[in-house]
Amino acid sequence: MTIDGPAVTVGIDFGTLSGRALVVAVEDGRELGSAVHEYTHAVVDRELPDGTPLPPDWALQVPQDWRDVLRLAVPAALREAGVSPRQVIGVATDFTACTVLPVTADGTPLCELPGFGGRPHAFPKLWRHHAAQPEADLIVERALETGQPWLARYGGRISSEWQYAKALQMLREDPAAYAAADRWIEAADWIVWQLTGSESRNPCTAGYKGMYQDGRYPDAAFLASLHPGFADFTAKLEHPLTPLGAPAGKLTAEAAALTGLREGTVVATGNVDAHVTAAAARTLEAGRLLAIMGTSTCHVLNSEVLAEVPGMCGVVGDGVVPGLWGYEAGQSGVGDIFAWAARTAVPEEYAQRARTAGTGVHELLTELAASQPVGGHGLVALDWHSGNRSVLVDHHLSGLIVGLTLDTRPEDIYRALVEATAFGTRVIVEAFEAAGVPVADFTAAGGLLKNRFLMQVYSDVLGRPVHLLSSAQGPALGSAIHAAVAAGAYPDIRAASAAMGRREENAYTPDPGRSAAYDRLYAEYLALHDHFGRGGSDVMHRLRAIRAQGLSAAEQTGVPSM
Amino acid sequence: MTIDGPAVTVGIDFGTLSGRALVVAVEDGRELGSAVHEYTHAVVDRELPDGTPLPPDWALQVPQDWRDVLRLAVPAALREAGVSPRQVIGVATDFTACTVLPVTADGTPLCELPGFGGRPHAFPKLWRHHAAQPEADLIVERALETGQPWLARYGGRISSEWQYAKALQMLREDPAAYAAADRWIEAADWIVWQLTGSESRNPCTAGYKGMYQDGRYPDAAFLASLHPGFADFTAKLEHPLTPLGAPAGKLTAEAAALTGLREGTVVATGNVDAHVTAAAARTLEAGRLLAIMGTSTCHVLNSEVLAEVPGMCGVVGDGVVPGLWGYEAGQSGVGDIFAWAARTAVPEEYAQRARTAGTGVHELLTELAASQPVGGHGLVALDWHSGNRSVLVDHHLSGLIVGLTLDTRPEDIYRALVEATAFGTRVIVEAFEAAGVPVADFTAAGGLLKNRFLMQVYSDVLGRPVHLLSSAQGPALGSAIHAAVAAGAYPDIRAASAAMGRREENAYTPDPGRSAAYDRLYAEYLALHDHFGRGGSDVMHRLRAIRAQGLSAAEQTGVPSM
Repeated sequence: MTIDGPAVTVGIDFGTLSGRALVVAVEDGRELGSAVHEYTHAVVDRELPDGTPLPPDWALQVPQDWRDVLRLAVPAALREAGVSPRQVIGVATDFTACTVLPVTADGTPLCELPGFGGRPHAFPKLWRHHAAQPEADLIVERALETGQPWLARYGGRISSEWQYAKALQMLREDPAAYAAADRWIEAADWIVWQLTGSESRNPCTAGYKGMYQDGRYPDAAFLASLHPGFADFTAKLEHPLTPLGAPAGKLTAEAAALTGLREGTVVATGNVDAHVTAAAARTLEAGRLLAIMGTSTCHVLNSEVLAEVPGMCGVVGDGVVPGLWGYEAGQSGVGDIFAWAARTAVPEEYAQRARTAGTGVHELLTELAASQPVGGHGLVALDWHSGNRSVLVDHHLSGLIVGLTLDTRPEDIYRALVEATAFGTRVIVEAFEAAGVPVADFTAAGGLLKNRFLMQVYSDVLGRPVHLLSSAQGPALGSAIHAAVAAGAYPDIRAASAAMGRREENAYTPDPGRSAAYDRLYAEYLALHDHFGRGGSDVMHRLRAIRAQGLSAAEQTGVPSM
Repeated sequence: MTIDGPAVTVGIDFGTLSGRALVVAVEDGRELGSAVHEYTHAVVDRELPDGTPLPPDWALQVPQDWRDVLRLAVPAALREAGVSPRQVIGVATDFTACTVLPVTADGTPLCELPGFGGRPHAFPKLWRHHAAQPEADLIVERALETGQPWLARYGGRISSEWQYAKALQMLREDPAAYAAADRWIEAADWIVWQLTGSESRNPCTAGYKGMYQDGRYPDAAFLASLHPGFADFTAKLEHPLTPLGAPAGKLTAEAAALTGLREGTVVATGNVDAHVTAAAARTLEAGRLLAIMGTSTCHVLNSEVLAEVPGMCGVVGDGVVPGLWGYEAGQSGVGDIFAWAARTAVPEEYAQRARTAGTGVHELLTELAASQPVGGHGLVALDWHSGNRSVLVDHHLSGLIVGLTLDTRPEDIYRALVEATAFGTRVIVEAFEAAGVPVADFTAAGGLLKNRFLMQVYSDVLGRPVHLLSSAQGPALGSAIHAAVAAGAYPDIRAASAAMGRREENAYTPDPGRSAAYDRLYAEYLALHDHFGRGGSDVMHRLRAIRAQGLSAAEQTGVPSM
């Protein structure tokens, strides 16, 4: 295809509540224009669009909302960028994961078939659908019994969020719908299907969410041990994988009409929002750990070394960039813990002060917290309000704070929580290194970058410089970089990342005095971490059990308690 | 003396910020009238009245403020009661303790002598003067070295608040003032001297604050080991003790003119506010534990058994009532921990709701907390924001909360703190019983009685009925009872207490289901209590040290920290 004017690509990032299209200059990664479409149905977690109620822990989405991103955000981004479709040499997408849906052989979502609009299992299950925990538990139990070799690649546990757990739940609870689904496909691949007209599969979701390891999915005997009808489940997944950065196909006439792009424009294989960000942050080289910090934190690290790292979310060959082992780790609560503190431990006087100063509560707490010396609050917290993913892989842990006195102020608690998440990151970094996976440097991305105090704490706690992804649209930029590779503008993702990625080196550097002081606090964090997280005390598990029993007994009797 | 009309007594309670006079019917303890005088100088903790600045941790008072209670509150109470001075058969006082002052041989406070008005050590030291910690530490160290037999009577530690520590601080820091003090006397005894014109001493402060045990004070050799000039300190204390409930003397003409009472009215020996409350609550019989619950809690228990109970504040023969061993224990933070939660972990929305409902924040939190089943919040806290007095005797412990999730609400934290203080009380009750000192029943007094939810939690946690002192003026009523005994209206304190004390039996009774549920939470509390309080983890001590170092380093460098 010929192009008119400077070449651009379009990266399209499908998030939890909205999708964003970003138009990027192929030459240097400049962001030329973008547009966002908020999903009409957002997260479907109470009832289906037809009013069918959903049980607790369910989280679904509506495929038409995703198509609307293509229809509305892509043309709008082009308009904002002031570029012609004839400049667009490639398109790439990234998605939340594991967000997965049942479709027919032609890619039609089951929920769009007549008679399926009221069946919850016919809808896409969003990544944060948590109703398949029994299935995840069963998968882990059977995998341990039968010594499945892939289990260690996921830190010894698989999540209820992933493909097999969600599919098994469907089979158990709605076998007819399960039978009607020819294919079981990540939204990351389904959206590419909408653009190219043909099915493709990417190695990132296959590996991190589908237990695809060493060229195969879990075998039929294992699946049969979970449920007799599950033995041939893999047939709904099987498809050649298209390497990351490679073209999955070309834009169909129909998709061209939808997006305003030209028919035949190259479309890259699908990808995951967190992982594709590594291209934007220029952290594809072995040893560069990328932390995408928002309500939770996802860590992505490439390495030449294959190792079993305790509590990692997964290690996948070619999972982030061809030729390297891609590691993923995670902290299940970060920004949402600060949000909890801001809605729980901030008195009226502080809210008023923030308003008077024309600022937010987080900003006020941060300002007050930043004026303290390290350890001046006398507190240590455990950042487990949402459990702990890496390295303990225990969702029934909980938050703790120790050192409280009558002088403890809201900003002290806030600071202790910020520090706790930094300590949690340090545990992960040290777990990689202890397992023989080098961590050469640390790069941060995501919404928390705007808090400069927090970033400095991370640098001081880690005793390392913190580099930054200097784009607020990391995933969409990463996709645009993949699109440039798929279109042939660069020989590979690393070269495209080097040219188009946006990175600020040494944005924060550790202060030696503060680092030394944090070492002492970190030792306290570690001791608590191990005591409460590794079996010294099981109080957190028992409190969860007491809580569940207390609430359920109260529900049954209806007796108001004191 | 003849009396006109029904006999009454006057109890005068000297608190931290004010003194109260209460006129009581001798026949049945009815409270006929009362009046309060707020001290003009309140707590002197920044500077002396002449502007001389005070170091941190100092807390003094001004004797004239106490005389003003006699001058103003006593006549006002008589007027409110509508009784004539000719009906008053006796007067008794109680005081905070250890509040102690240096005086001349005629009882003149040193601070009132010419030339002493600008010398901090010439003033009375209030109970909460905490600047004598080095002296208390030295006393304990030497007592351990030399095997002082009295040490075990105080749970193995003496407080910096007590007579010897405060006096030793004076000797070290202002030896000339120390030398000028003929006597070193509790305010509890000094106020009686003001009424009767002659010195007397009571066994309660001598025993609980002066280490007077088995008929003697610590010996001269021991005192010399603290400081050569301290060897003869006891000479400033020595004086026959007047048993509790006995007359210390009669009102002088001068004191009669001051108070509006008749010259010659009987005055009882001095007493301490907490201990005298036992008479008002009718808890003088062996085994009746009285908890006086306010910002902190003081426990008073009489027993026929002498035992060494871990972490008690003291055991004194005849210390509460003649013929029994009087035990004192304490929780260093109770109501002030709830106040901390109300000022720290209550968001603006809650404050607004409380205002809209025309109620207070504590009341709102209590209402919300009370609607939960036991354990429904999933939390356990340690109530050590002010350290732990009984049973661990460790002021460097700190508060802890575990079980936090993103769903944890302010009322959950509030309830967990209420429960933690109840668990702390249960630890004390069980310590007495484990040491062979029976606890037959549990009676509550003090400001926290107004929180019905809290009282029910205590009953459920203890698995016992909670009886109440049904007077808001417990100490003053207790003093009035002692006055009736001193005047000969009753043969002894027990008889007077039975007739004049005010008590509501079984105001709260435990719910078996909730008690059983609390047993499980209490087991978690105990495990945390022992882990953090008995050496399993010293993190709380280390955090205090880190805090002190961090703050002091910041002060020295003046460098703003991040």
